[in-house]
Amino acid sequence: ELQKLLNEFHYADIAEILDELDLEAAMYVIKLLDSEMTSDIIMELDEDNREKVLKNLSAKEIAEEIEELDTDDAADIIAELPEERQQEVISHIEDEDHKAEIKELLAYDEDTAGGLMAKELVKVYETWTVAGCLRRIRGQAKDVTRVHSIYVVDKQNKLIGRLSLKDLIVAKSDQKIADIYISNVDSVNVHDEAEDVARVMQKYDLEAIPVVDNNQKLLGRITIDDIVDVMKEEAEKDYQLAAGITSDVEADDSIWELTKARLPWLLIGMFGGIGAATIITNFQTVMKDYAILLCFVPLIQATAGNVGVQSSAIVVQGLANDTIKGEILKRLFKEFVLGLVNGVAIAFVAIIISHFFFKTEYLVSLTIGAALITVIIIAALIGTFIPIFLDKRGVDPAVATGPFITTSNDIFGILLYFLIAKLILGF
Amino acid sequence: ELQKLLNEFHYADIAEILDELDLEAAMYVIKLLDSEMTSDIIMELDEDNREKVLKNLSAKEIAEEIEELDTDDAADIIAELPEERQQEVISHIEDEDHKAEIKELLAYDEDTAGGLMAKELVKVYETWTVAGCLRRIRGQAKDVTRVHSIYVVDKQNKLIGRLSLKDLIVAKSDQKIADIYISNVDSVNVHDEAEDVARVMQKYDLEAIPVVDNNQKLLGRITIDDIVDVMKEEAEKDYQLAAGITSDVEADDSIWELTKARLPWLLIGMFGGIGAATIITNFQTVMKDYAILLCFVPLIQATAGNVGVQSSAIVVQGLANDTIKGEILKRLFKEFVLGLVNGVAIAFVAIIISHFFFKTEYLVSLTIGAALITVIIIAALIGTFIPIFLDKRGVDPAVATGPFITTSNDIFGILLYFLIAKLILGF
Ligand SMILES: [Mg+2]
Ligand SMILES: [Mg+2]
Ligand SMILES: [Mg+2]
Ligand SMILES: [Mg+2]
Ligand SMILES: [Mg+2]
Ligand SMILES: [Mg+2]
Ligand SMILES: [Mg+2]
Ligand SMILES: [Mg+2]
Ligand SMILES: [Mg+2]
Ligand SMILES: [Mg+2]
Ligand SMILES: [Mg+2]
Ligand SMILES: [Mg+2]
Ligand SMILES: [Mg+2]
Repeated sequence: ELQKLLNEFHYADIAEILDELDLEAAMYVIKLLDSEMTSDIIMELDEDNREKVLKNLSAKEIAEEIEELDTDDAADIIAELPEERQQEVISHIEDEDHKAEIKELLAYDEDTAGGLMAKELVKVYETWTVAGCLRRIRGQAKDVTRVHSIYVVDKQNKLIGRLSLKDLIVAKSDQKIADIYISNVDSVNVHDEAEDVARVMQKYDLEAIPVVDNNQKLLGRITIDDIVDVMKEEAEKDYQLAAGITSDVEADDSIWELTKARLPWLLIGMFGGIGAATIITNFQTVMKDYAILLCFVPLIQATAGNVGVQSSAIVVQGLANDTIKGEILKRLFKEFVLGLVNGVAIAFVAIIISHFFFKTEYLVSLTIGAALITVIIIAALIGTFIPIFLDKRGVDPAVATGPFITTSNDIFGILLYFLIAKLILGF
Repeated sequence: ELQKLLNEFHYADIAEILDELDLEAAMYVIKLLDSEMTSDIIMELDEDNREKVLKNLSAKEIAEEIEELDTDDAADIIAELPEERQQEVISHIEDEDHKAEIKELLAYDEDTAGGLMAKELVKVYETWTVAGCLRRIRGQAKDVTRVHSIYVVDKQNKLIGRLSLKDLIVAKSDQKIADIYISNVDSVNVHDEAEDVARVMQKYDLEAIPVVDNNQKLLGRITIDDIVDVMKEEAEKDYQLAAGITSDVEADDSIWELTKARLPWLLIGMFGGIGAATIITNFQTVMKDYAILLCFVPLIQATAGNVGVQSSAIVVQGLANDTIKGEILKRLFKEFVLGLVNGVAIAFVAIIISHFFFKTEYLVSLTIGAALITVIIIAALIGTFIPIFLDKRGVDPAVATGPFITTSNDIFGILLYFLIAKLILGF
């Protein structure tokens, strides 16, 4: 009954249901279902649920699932297994070609084109005729879920062009491939970064892209569905980093997982707060006459934090989109002007409010205004400089937004505030 | 010379170059190029550059470009024109079918399936034979850049199934479509939200999805390249909202554009700071003996802000992915426990530091610790509640991260801190 019912569903829907069940129930359903479906379901499970399910399967059972998957998914699942199980599972794969291809894919870093590509593709030699092609494609296409482009290679397996299935259908059957193929074919190098592959595929509206080695030899193919997943993961990771969450977590994860992801940044923020407390303690004793200044510490701190996050977010996004060109100095100058404009606007409002609402002395109002302008400019410069600096050092600039920038700006902002107060009020 | 050189490039690359040039140079290049290429280039330009370029073209010239575009892109460009120009451009479109289709598409909201779909698709009737199909597809396919699926409809134009080009090639030529089509076909309603379409296509790994009306009649087709753009835009918008940037800007935009996008949140943050100043002023006079408490205001504020941003980011992402199910109360309880765990950890460290490093009295240390725990819990609850509340009200919860949460938590945090201090220290 249940078996019949579930076989009607899409594997992605079943995976979604299993993610909500406990392990025992999930295993029961997996054992119940058609073997062909289970491999796709396992592939779609949440990573931590998949780990548990795979622990409950023997190496032979995992190998059977893997036989049914495309090489890219097969390699990904094997890569998730503990080192010692990997060899055992591989040894149980019966199809020797499939096994060799999976082993090849396991050698590539998961964040590169090689880590995303599958070996399944349709390729033809330039010397073939259209009729011969169609005949052989009928064979090759059985292993390839979706054909997309047909890749044309020369005798050395070098990628020289492409054809669409449509082109082939429209062509006359005795034409040579060499005469009809499109030589203008986009490709990526097997060592290119996943994010760069995504950028290329988005820019040129591609649904699949061939992957070649340094000698232009055709190695595999990346399809857009996997790039869509990469884009989604990247966006979520950057969003969480900007919010001070260090590892990939979801609302439904355990309190322990969530604490592990959140506490580190809270601690860093706490040390920032302790740093600020140290600064204030040192100034507090010397400025008894200007205790009102302490009331505006939150204003200075909030402004510094907000400006820093804004500046860094724009730079991080620009770096991710490869649109940040030109010299750092020019960009910093622009942020300086921008900070000045925003600073004067904010300072103007703040001076009015402090004067009429808090009845502060002129020099105190001036202090607050001058501090706001300075702090906004410095925060904008720090927010711009740090991501660019990290990027040049090869560190993902996305870590530089959120709590990181906020914390450093909290400290710098408060220190600047009191130094400017000292200068203007002379305590 | 230049003409020959540029014709070798991909239109997306030329658009990237033109985005860097000034208007005059860009217009010069556009007039120089093959007409077929220019429409694609114009489509790929940055929105503000496209606006300028279109201003420099006559209604007739725009209509000529539009004749060469797919209906989805054609409708998008027309929708960007000022109201009065739209009619003028439409009246210049010569192809009556194309004109009618574009007019139909203009009626849909851009954030819905209707706003994303194109009228170009390949459809066959269930009564046709494979051979008849192939013959007619050769005709239809000329207008369709990429075929993807072939949609099968009944006599009332209701979508009943699909076929791949591969299925058609593999089938025998005298078979009926009715006998070979796959009846299990995903589709979206024309009024579905763009983000929901993206979710469906990602989940089922689709490259194209048919769009139907409430009666299941086939209206159009959405392709993955446009969904990739939607996903990218959505991710960038949410990232910027979380960073307190209100409209879609890039690092290269003018200082004026950037100020417009950034100043509003800075002003909101400023009013938060003024609110905090009001609170402190009111407490300052009554707690002269505990001036040390003021030194820890930045710590309280930073912690409240960080926790709020973390909680809201996880909820906003969960809402976007449709993974936030179950009652609000259960989720708030979880955040309460999480806040308690994080709060106790942070408070413990803070008490140790304040006691040994700042030599605060026991009761002051206790105040700081108790305030941190309370503030972390409240900030977590506010960060969780506000996005869910906004979502239920139909407001995009993504506005609720960043400065919005930080500012409200700044005020609540500082108020709680002093109330707890008053309770414990009794001033
Ligand atoms: Mg199986
Ligand atoms: Mg892989
Ligand atoms: Mg694109
Ligand atoms: Mg496009
Ligand atoms: Mg794949
Ligand atoms: Mg990134
Ligand atoms: Mg802050
Ligand atoms: Mg043109
Ligand atoms: Mg549209
Ligand atoms: Mg997917
Ligand atoms: Mg997939
Ligand atoms: Mg399109
Ligand atoms: Mg959204």
